[in-house]
Amino acid sequence: MSLLTVGTVAFDSIETPFGKAERIVGGAATFIGLSASYFVDQVNVVSVIGDDFPKEVLQDMEKRGINLEGLQVKEGEKSFFWEGKYHNNMNSRDTLDTQLNVLENFDPVLPDAYKSPSFLMLGNLTPAVQMRVLEQLESKPKLTVMDTMNFWMDIAWDELLEVIKKVDVLMINDEEARQLSKEYSLVSAAKKILTMGPEYLVIKKGEHGALLFHKDEIFSAPALPLEMVYDPTGAGDTFAGGFTGYLAKCQEVDFEKMKSAIIYGSAMASFTVEKFGIERLAELTKEEVQERVDQFVKLASFTV
Amino acid sequence: MSLLTVGTVAFDSIETPFGKAERIVGGAATFIGLSASYFVDQVNVVSVIGDDFPKEVLQDMEKRGINLEGLQVKEGEKSFFWEGKYHNNMNSRDTLDTQLNVLENFDPVLPDAYKSPSFLMLGNLTPAVQMRVLEQLESKPKLTVMDTMNFWMDIAWDELLEVIKKVDVLMINDEEARQLSKEYSLVSAAKKILTMGPEYLVIKKGEHGALLFHKDEIFSAPALPLEMVYDPTGAGDTFAGGFTGYLAKCQEVDFEKMKSAIIYGSAMASFTVEKFGIERLAELTKEEVQERVDQFVKLASFTV
Repeated sequence: MSLLTVGTVAFDSIETPFGKAERIVGGAATFIGLSASYFVDQVNVVSVIGDDFPKEVLQDMEKRGINLEGLQVKEGEKSFFWEGKYHNNMNSRDTLDTQLNVLENFDPVLPDAYKSPSFLMLGNLTPAVQMRVLEQLESKPKLTVMDTMNFWMDIAWDELLEVIKKVDVLMINDEEARQLSKEYSLVSAAKKILTMGPEYLVIKKGEHGALLFHKDEIFSAPALPLEMVYDPTGAGDTFAGGFTGYLAKCQEVDFEKMKSAIIYGSAMASFTVEKFGIERLAELTKEEVQERVDQFVKLASFTV
Repeated sequence: MSLLTVGTVAFDSIETPFGKAERIVGGAATFIGLSASYFVDQVNVVSVIGDDFPKEVLQDMEKRGINLEGLQVKEGEKSFFWEGKYHNNMNSRDTLDTQLNVLENFDPVLPDAYKSPSFLMLGNLTPAVQMRVLEQLESKPKLTVMDTMNFWMDIAWDELLEVIKKVDVLMINDEEARQLSKEYSLVSAAKKILTMGPEYLVIKKGEHGALLFHKDEIFSAPALPLEMVYDPTGAGDTFAGGFTGYLAKCQEVDFEKMKSAIIYGSAMASFTVEKFGIERLAELTKEEVQERVDQFVKLASFTV
């Protein structure tokens, strides 16, 4: 089994109603990698950073089984930086600053050892970069999962559709599903999106859980009701990492396993929001993960 | 077993993106009664109408086991009338007209045969009227369920809290839970509301399902993802009727049974929104209800 992911490794400055964190470690590939590392022994990461990125964090990631051979370090350049402020309801946020830095000319290069992954998670990045990763593969993965966002629908529609055509699972939120399909009803949106290439569609609804669509089947997963969401940054990436990591561990891909994978992904994401950045995710134990999954079982089970 | 409900029996004019319906039959007690009638043989209704209400509809209700002895008919007066228009997303609506008519001086009078109900569902009405019903009871019901709305929080706060103190289950939507508790997080809101009297709190989230809170336990129920919501009017009342009706049929009240009751209530509500007004609800078969419940089981089940 091998799991490959591509995404940002970056800095975030975040303000939420509960506090402020300046230039903490973030990035899609960081969250995906850490989350997946609870399920598989090795996660291969393709990304790019500047020489300003803390070496200790990289060492910690490597200790957790995250292989950074595909992480380019650009001397004299700066890592990607995002600054945002969450509104009181935590469901919406304003971007205050985006500095692409090393990301501007990022050309993902897959080391030879990365070129035949069994499982591939394309983190949210410009569709052209996601496509460049797909082009370097020497064999088709057992499963390719893709994240994206409305921004690429606005500025790179055609390229985005080309990538979507090639993946097995598309993972987006409800507003993105509506924008991509031009349908308001999520059922209609899903029907349309499932004709665009992916066999499975995961619609993330934040505090309202997630929906999985596959052919005529639908699975509705709950979110864990939380007393406090400290910082939602990275929750979607953590979900994606847990989802793909769990499937990679199982080595099996069908609707039933995907349902379980959504629960594991949701459980992982419910940890991430408990603290700023990767703090909570990096300190987790496998026992805590299993306990949280058991909470989901209790939360959703009923008899009729 | 006896189930008593109080609420409006009324006319609605409704506009949705899918069409318009003028002066169709609606009202909380109408939806609650019809929905509950699929589970129990007799539903006692306390309400008031004018002499403009169609007699055939009343006869149809009676045929379905709805006892209208407690329905006051005011000669020379008009029934309650509401007119509303739903926005494109169906989650919000504008009230265009409200004519209280007979509701203005409504004094609910319980016939003797209604005074010892095992199950009581207080439909959304002014808290003073809900209290008048409670005052006429000769014995405490096995379970009292209450619906209300933000409007009463705005204009009748103290009276509302007095009624809430006396019920076992409070059933409100997420925004109402936030307003009532002055807490944003639904978990914090629920903790606070469970100190106000009710032992159980149901938070309805429309297309996102419902949450049940009891002591430290939480149950998250999905909503059925629908391709088209034709008219959401009465969905909450249908839910309440199915919920209370199912529990009345079981004659048992505990957390496990309430979870099932939420699924039955959700299944009933999923029918109501398929057509305008009571049209779909009035034509249902018990087999259709059971099939829909089975769909919920499929929708929410997973293994880990």
